[in-house]
Amino acid sequence: MDLTLDKLHDFARGAAFLGTGGGGDPYVGRLILQQQLRSGARVKLIDPSELDDDALVVPVANMGAPTVLIERFPNGPAAVAAVRKMEELLGRKAAAIMPIEAGGVNATLPAVVGALMDLPVVDADGMGRAFPELQMTTFSVYGVPGSPVVIKDEHDNEVVVKAVDDETAEWLARVVCIRMGGKAEITLYPMNGHDAKTKSVPRTISLAMEIGRVISDARSEQRDPFEALAAFFASTEPARCCKILFDGKVVDLLRETTRGFAIGRLILQRIDGGGEPMEIAFQNEFLSAQIGEAVLATAPDLICILDRETAEPITTEGLRYGQRVKVVGVSVPPVMRTPEALAVWGPRKFGVDRDYVPIEEIDVAV
Amino acid sequence: MDLTLDKLHDFARGAAFLGTGGGGDPYVGRLILQQQLRSGARVKLIDPSELDDDALVVPVANMGAPTVLIERFPNGPAAVAAVRKMEELLGRKAAAIMPIEAGGVNATLPAVVGALMDLPVVDADGMGRAFPELQMTTFSVYGVPGSPVVIKDEHDNEVVVKAVDDETAEWLARVVCIRMGGKAEITLYPMNGHDAKTKSVPRTISLAMEIGRVISDARSEQRDPFEALAAFFASTEPARCCKILFDGKVVDLLRETTRGFAIGRLILQRIDGGGEPMEIAFQNEFLSAQIGEAVLATAPDLICILDRETAEPITTEGLRYGQRVKVVGVSVPPVMRTPEALAVWGPRKFGVDRDYVPIEEIDVAV
Repeated sequence: MDLTLDKLHDFARGAAFLGTGGGGDPYVGRLILQQQLRSGARVKLIDPSELDDDALVVPVANMGAPTVLIERFPNGPAAVAAVRKMEELLGRKAAAIMPIEAGGVNATLPAVVGALMDLPVVDADGMGRAFPELQMTTFSVYGVPGSPVVIKDEHDNEVVVKAVDDETAEWLARVVCIRMGGKAEITLYPMNGHDAKTKSVPRTISLAMEIGRVISDARSEQRDPFEALAAFFASTEPARCCKILFDGKVVDLLRETTRGFAIGRLILQRIDGGGEPMEIAFQNEFLSAQIGEAVLATAPDLICILDRETAEPITTEGLRYGQRVKVVGVSVPPVMRTPEALAVWGPRKFGVDRDYVPIEEIDVAV
Repeated sequence: MDLTLDKLHDFARGAAFLGTGGGGDPYVGRLILQQQLRSGARVKLIDPSELDDDALVVPVANMGAPTVLIERFPNGPAAVAAVRKMEELLGRKAAAIMPIEAGGVNATLPAVVGALMDLPVVDADGMGRAFPELQMTTFSVYGVPGSPVVIKDEHDNEVVVKAVDDETAEWLARVVCIRMGGKAEITLYPMNGHDAKTKSVPRTISLAMEIGRVISDARSEQRDPFEALAAFFASTEPARCCKILFDGKVVDLLRETTRGFAIGRLILQRIDGGGEPMEIAFQNEFLSAQIGEAVLATAPDLICILDRETAEPITTEGLRYGQRVKVVGVSVPPVMRTPEALAVWGPRKFGVDRDYVPIEEIDVAV
């Protein structure tokens, strides 16, 4: 299947939905890919099952705080240079490019790189969503080393990190990214086709396209996009829970670009001003949603903030006072909920001091 | 010439003198080299002129704030691993090891590495003293690229920086060093023998040994070590100015370990409490000495703080309230004073807003 211009809006929107606030602005992501596609480049998507077991798959991403990524655009040639460097380090040619995470930019940048290098893009990623840190991938959880991490900026500065574990790789790569101006292009988790098949979250790109299409179809047919999303997730295999966690407006926002991330808290109130407010904590991504002491959702389940009328996903850097939004929670696939996975991205990893409770088991009355 | 146990005290003391506060504690530097020499290792010093023009020379250093280096010791095996990595990157074997700077640790660590790898150590360095930043070397000033910079910690984490210029290499390597715990072993400025001969400050190691010996001889012969130092520097070829800039005690010290450096200001007062105090600014090294508005010395000339009686060099991290000290200024060789050199380490690079004035042209009345 090709990723073509006509699918681009749906793809970028759906990727931003899965990005849960992070992974980059879909407008930026759309622009960079549009430019490639309009100039005649072809983006060939392949299912992980199509990979040869010993093919070299190179994941590509834009690293940085979302608040920086809207000012400093992702750089396709720097990302290509990062892939070339990875090939040099491994002494092998890449057979395919893969996203590390979903998100408005981090789903589209690998497609840009695929187009520039004439390589297929694997329809999968390492999170099935976006997470703030490099070690938070199914690749890492299930045994693919993150190192070497190649970090490139647009001035051709290059840093290669080989760390003894992926948390240390994140620790070292993050400051390099900060000193490169808060964003950098990276390649990491180089893996063979067998690992890409068995240790990824499959079909994230096609899922993003479908989510985007569900939203745009509902809009054009004047149906409720939130109902359409719930119906869509109920129809996936396996079925996924999708529910509205809150309906209200942004009344307070504390957002700092610090330690290389966009970190903060968002307070939402019901439109009528009644009831208790919702508090959403974020580190690039929306990671927990609480009303008072009641936790309504935590990572790894998706917490998506969508425009109240159009269901357009709102990213962390796009949050504004007064926005009218609905907060949607979506359950994640079983591969994201194993004990070893939750040890890496469960609630405690993001400062919520409780065990993970699957979102479908939490009662919500909006 | 071999660097043997009997020369070790003089060598470490003299290296600390040239370190002007930075480059590591000479006690630590002495211990790590003593351990090697006592276990039978041999450290062979060679003059730069003995190098083959196409031999690969690998400079080695311990990077970090002096305040950290006394808690986290330099790691010989990590430094050896950094040399091995450099060899791998260049596809060639190192023929010799070289210091980047003088200093209690940074002059002795290359000798430890030479002993461990059975390689000669070049009697030269890139500063003829210590400076706080990686780009501040004669290598860089006269055209040897600092990159690749290999950074290793004792846990076997490894980062390789290839920057477009040496200031950027410093910028990126420094934060990696900070995240590795404030110190790391590095190799950088790999060069051929021809460059090592023509773009280094020659005979820094033998100079350190001589300075150390001058101090210890004066002590054992009950002569004034400060007079002995002045006489010694007057006798070198070319003759160097060495004079006392201040005689007094430490009355105030502001020292922060920040941005990966030990940064601060030291205030000295005359023993009798009269006259104006001297203020010395430091960033790892002592970089400027002022009395009121009068600047008595700035980098690149050496500003050394020595015990008032024994002339034992005091490092930045060794400064204490109440210490009685003499501040000594020493002129540096012409290679350190060219316009291109002063553009890298002149007074303005360290926040002193004036052109460089050679220390011998400044009148001092102590």
